[in-house]
Amino acid sequence: MRSSVLLMTVLLGLPWSAQAQFSRLNDAVKYRQAAFQVLGTHVQRAGAMAKGEVPFDKPAAEANAALIELLSRQLASAFPPGTDMAPSKAKPEVWLEAAKFKAHQDELQSSAARLSNAARSGDANAFKAAFNTLAQTCKACHDGYRNR
Amino acid sequence: MRSSVLLMTVLLGLPWSAQAQFSRLNDAVKYRQAAFQVLGTHVQRAGAMAKGEVPFDKPAAEANAALIELLSRQLASAFPPGTDMAPSKAKPEVWLEAAKFKAHQDELQSSAARLSNAARSGDANAFKAAFNTLAQTCKACHDGYRNR
Repeated sequence: MRSSVLLMTVLLGLPWSAQAQFSRLNDAVKYRQAAFQVLGTHVQRAGAMAKGEVPFDKPAAEANAALIELLSRQLASAFPPGTDMAPSKAKPEVWLEAAKFKAHQDELQSSAARLSNAARSGDANAFKAAFNTLAQTCKACHDGYRNR
Repeated sequence: MRSSVLLMTVLLGLPWSAQAQFSRLNDAVKYRQAAFQVLGTHVQRAGAMAKGEVPFDKPAAEANAALIELLSRQLASAFPPGTDMAPSKAKPEVWLEAAKFKAHQDELQSSAARLSNAARSGDANAFKAAFNTLAQTCKACHDGYRNR
């Protein structure tokens, strides 16, 4: 079983991680929907701080940014081929324009890493700037790749 | 608005974080269900490594443990009073035996921190031992505080 998956991975040239991490295809849908729910909560909390709705608090900023960063990395392997299925809101373009979608995912990871760095610096203005970049990254991908 | 929440928090002697983090009570339910879904996936992945079903891989062990650790900290404030509502599977004992439930949450956080340390050490046996402790911690809390 494992060896046939490995063989398929090699043949298709797909990353091992994306093939191996979910034993059933709908597990990938469940995982990414949950991960985006958690990610969204921490983006909102970071946003409240970036917008000055709550005071900048370094430990909270770091905790929110760390979760956004770690989840953004995990999400890179959460859209394996064949997971264009309900209740996923992912548009077919996720797979049809795989290279462009991957560029958005890479951008999310780098925006999230910048937010973490800004949080660790303790500079509220740097955090605000990094958050604004992250928010634009979210929007650009949602506009093209997520059904409402 | 903010000041009345702050006042209520002070009057009730509740931690500010638990009051302030969710603007609506059912947001807490959504958040913790999603967080447990993500947590469960990473516990499974860590478990596959601990059980030798997949080879021990230090970076993957660290990534899984880091998410378990960060989510376990966030979950500490994800059961505010008043969130005993569908579709939550939390038993009323979560709030009726709040001190005992908190002890389980603290144990989850310390088990998760030990798993992270073991992952960072790169010692597969230490990781296996830490995973077994974590799995017992999960089970003990599920047995008493989660409906099936």
